[in-house]
Amino acid sequence: MHDARIGELGLRLPGPFPPHDPLDAVVVHAGTARTSGCLPRTVEGELYAHGLLGGEVPVVTGVECAELCALNALSLLRAALGTLDAIERVLAVTAFIACTGDFVEQPAVADGASRLLERVFGAGGRHTRSAIGVAALPRGAPVEVEVTVALSGGA
Amino acid sequence: MHDARIGELGLRLPGPFPPHDPLDAVVVHAGTARTSGCLPRTVEGELYAHGLLGGEVPVVTGVECAELCALNALSLLRAALGTLDAIERVLAVTAFIACTGDFVEQPAVADGASRLLERVFGAGGRHTRSAIGVAALPRGAPVEVEVTVALSGGA
Amino acid sequence: MHDARIGELGLRLPGPFPPHDPLDAVVVHAGTARTSGCLPRTVEGELYAHGLLGGEVPVVTGVECAELCALNALSLLRAALGTLDAIERVLAVTAFIACTGDFVEQPAVADGASRLLERVFGAGGRHTRSAIGVAALPRGAPVEVEVTVALSGGA
Repeated sequence: MHDARIGELGLRLPGPFPPHDPLDAVVVHAGTARTSGCLPRTVEGELYAHGLLGGEVPVVTGVECAELCALNALSLLRAALGTLDAIERVLAVTAFIACTGDFVEQPAVADGASRLLERVFGAGGRHTRSAIGVAALPRGAPVEVEVTVALSGGA
Repeated sequence: MHDARIGELGLRLPGPFPPHDPLDAVVVHAGTARTSGCLPRTVEGELYAHGLLGGEVPVVTGVECAELCALNALSLLRAALGTLDAIERVLAVTAFIACTGDFVEQPAVADGASRLLERVFGAGGRHTRSAIGVAALPRGAPVEVEVTVALSGGA
Repeated sequence: MHDARIGELGLRLPGPFPPHDPLDAVVVHAGTARTSGCLPRTVEGELYAHGLLGGEVPVVTGVECAELCALNALSLLRAALGTLDAIERVLAVTAFIACTGDFVEQPAVADGASRLLERVFGAGGRHTRSAIGVAALPRGAPVEVEVTVALSGGA
């Protein structure tokens, strides 16, 4: 199902790269799982880009960062749940985009994460989202994404 | 009840203006409903203002924007639930306010949304809130508001 | 248990300083409690610092601010729940850090809150977190922290 879909799409999940103590990568509670904020790490563990949208980071790179953030979130969820097949649907995404004060294409950047989730989960990948332009993000990352999902059955 | 209250207060819900695919305007899960981030759209669908608080947007305009964001959130909720009467209470509001680095009146701006919710839902309109000053918001909107509500009965 | 632990650690909870109407300091719903965004208020009720990380506020002061934000959140939770012993575990923390565009140590600052929660709740203090650098915060506070906890039993 969802695990197999990752391979069918030719995607590769980086990491998982869990956060440092006392943070949890994922917390499962009352049938939902929520990730910590995920940065755009490559399979090598490095940030894919640094800096601000509207500055040194072009929109196309921001979109790729958002997609990588979502892949890192899925990697953390797979590690925590054992399988992505435990996910019934995506509930919510918050996408923080480091940008200059005149940058207005936060939705286009965040779509990199949203579309990735739709490709993996189909109709179950739809979600509410807030896309926010912020001053700066950890390690100079251009994008940070937090994902909340609903779990199947009584999980 | 709440639907009737909108009319009694002389308010008019804009839209609903749902976000583009694969986003959901509202996700209902486990007795709660959460909206995507809402911009201050007028009944014509245009943004009420553009720019930064502390810059070209005065506080009074920011307050009006926050109220419009809340009205747009209610419009999305009414469309998703069929009726605002399905809402038992408001749980949480996150208000993002695009502003300069020296702007400190985020709470006054966010109150535009909070007070509107109290007018519509009475005591059930009380909620937790974080009011955050951010670098920039989609389309250059001065305010974006996300609302989570609890649903009545087993809804 | 947790209430006693506050004293054992030599900590003192400021306030509680609840937000103005129509905001709730804490909303309890479906076995969880979520605070409004908390500023770094001292026991005297004043902000511990003002300004931006990467600017006039050094990282060590930011860490102290984040710890104070968490103590204020615990103070609000104790007032709302009657006792911190009603808390089973911490679920999630969102840490907003007012900073310049080149500041990248948001995690180090947010750790002030995360480590405080771990000291009080032990393994139950682990949580997911997003640490976000924002343009400005209410009253010029350098840090704002929002906390969600799970309640024990059928609370």
